[in-house]
Amino acid sequence: MYISGFNSANAILKRPELIRKIFVSSSKKSLRLYEFVEKAISLNLNIDYCNQTKLSVFDPTNKHQGVIVEVAPLTLYNQSHLKKILDNLGDSSLILILDSIQDPRNLGACIRNAVAFGVDMLILNKDSSAPINDLVFKSSVGAVLDLNILQVSNISNTIDILKKKGFWIFGLDGNSISNIVDESFPSKTVLIMGSEGFGIRPLIKKRCDKLLKITILENVESLNISVATGISLYEVNRQKHTKT
Amino acid sequence: MYISGFNSANAILKRPELIRKIFVSSSKKSLRLYEFVEKAISLNLNIDYCNQTKLSVFDPTNKHQGVIVEVAPLTLYNQSHLKKILDNLGDSSLILILDSIQDPRNLGACIRNAVAFGVDMLILNKDSSAPINDLVFKSSVGAVLDLNILQVSNISNTIDILKKKGFWIFGLDGNSISNIVDESFPSKTVLIMGSEGFGIRPLIKKRCDKLLKITILENVESLNISVATGISLYEVNRQKHTKT
Repeated sequence: MYISGFNSANAILKRPELIRKIFVSSSKKSLRLYEFVEKAISLNLNIDYCNQTKLSVFDPTNKHQGVIVEVAPLTLYNQSHLKKILDNLGDSSLILILDSIQDPRNLGACIRNAVAFGVDMLILNKDSSAPINDLVFKSSVGAVLDLNILQVSNISNTIDILKKKGFWIFGLDGNSISNIVDESFPSKTVLIMGSEGFGIRPLIKKRCDKLLKITILENVESLNISVATGISLYEVNRQKHTKT
Repeated sequence: MYISGFNSANAILKRPELIRKIFVSSSKKSLRLYEFVEKAISLNLNIDYCNQTKLSVFDPTNKHQGVIVEVAPLTLYNQSHLKKILDNLGDSSLILILDSIQDPRNLGACIRNAVAFGVDMLILNKDSSAPINDLVFKSSVGAVLDLNILQVSNISNTIDILKKKGFWIFGLDGNSISNIVDESFPSKTVLIMGSEGFGIRPLIKKRCDKLLKITILENVESLNISVATGISLYEVNRQKHTKT
């Protein structure tokens, strides 16, 4: 995976073990490029100075700002790791399930929210979610590196396991009667967000203990999925803040 | 302005007076294209059936899904309209100021939030904000049509006028000590959000009555601007909901 641009490249420096190679423009000069290179050298990372043509091979959009990082594939967990991750979570845990988010930018923004609001684990369905690629990395501003991400083939089964472990399952659904503002979240909470345009799939919805909505005016059909995810996670955190 | 794709084209049908012409693919056949055309015909709108090559002229990305709408420029207000708009607002009003938002997708998403959470007026600085173009329209999912948008050249002056009219000015700032959760918003509230990466400009920040932050974990530097805007507007609305 090739990650381009300053913010993303800087984000990945905190996990140098993932970096295979760094490509830096030999013609661009700037303070931030200089600072980035200094940091990379201090971490004993390999730097390849190259021309614009070579950089364009790795990032045809040419929005790399003179820096591209080749990154090893990220460690993603699967169903077989679930039990172990759950055993390591504390008594107060927040799990986010994203059901079939298609747009990599939305997925990245949701991941940024998840880390910002202390989500302990993100669960994605393997087959119908956007893959964790460079676009996801960029729009998460590197937050993918800070989150346990579990890819499962069957979310329903995973929900059943989470229920047995004492988690309460809340699904966000614009057609629900209950408002998220009025909900009281338990210490073990799972929040499920559905895809852009379609929401949570019916079979998953049926497995939720409760469906909640964010009240918005009627002339807007829905919020952007990353905004809805951010608000929902904010609300869970707000309640913790108010209780303490 | 050419607006392409189904969601956007459907959104603009609610304001047929803005539509100059509709271009529809002569080769694509689908139920939703058929339904869209039926709706457009019932509104006496002009439809031009054309081939892919012509559609590509208006939308070189070719993500038009077989439909492109030519729209008249949207009505945007300026400083001279401010007094009149303020006079027409009720005793309880919420104004959003976006200071120098550069990314049209973020601006569009912020506008979608603003309409969803009942913002009465959006104020943008004319010179350093993204222009209201087709990208903004698309990412707002047509919500730009439902909002009073005022473009001013000097936000500081505008803030002074709003203060005189009894508004309290709150700025969102990640470095603030005060948490938005603990704030009690008055009936006349102005919320200011700064640009991606830089936040509210210092001179504007100085004019705020209070700076507020959304508490997030330290390993994430900031939230996406549209997520932060959504959460802030949600919080103002939540308080109203709790009071009633």
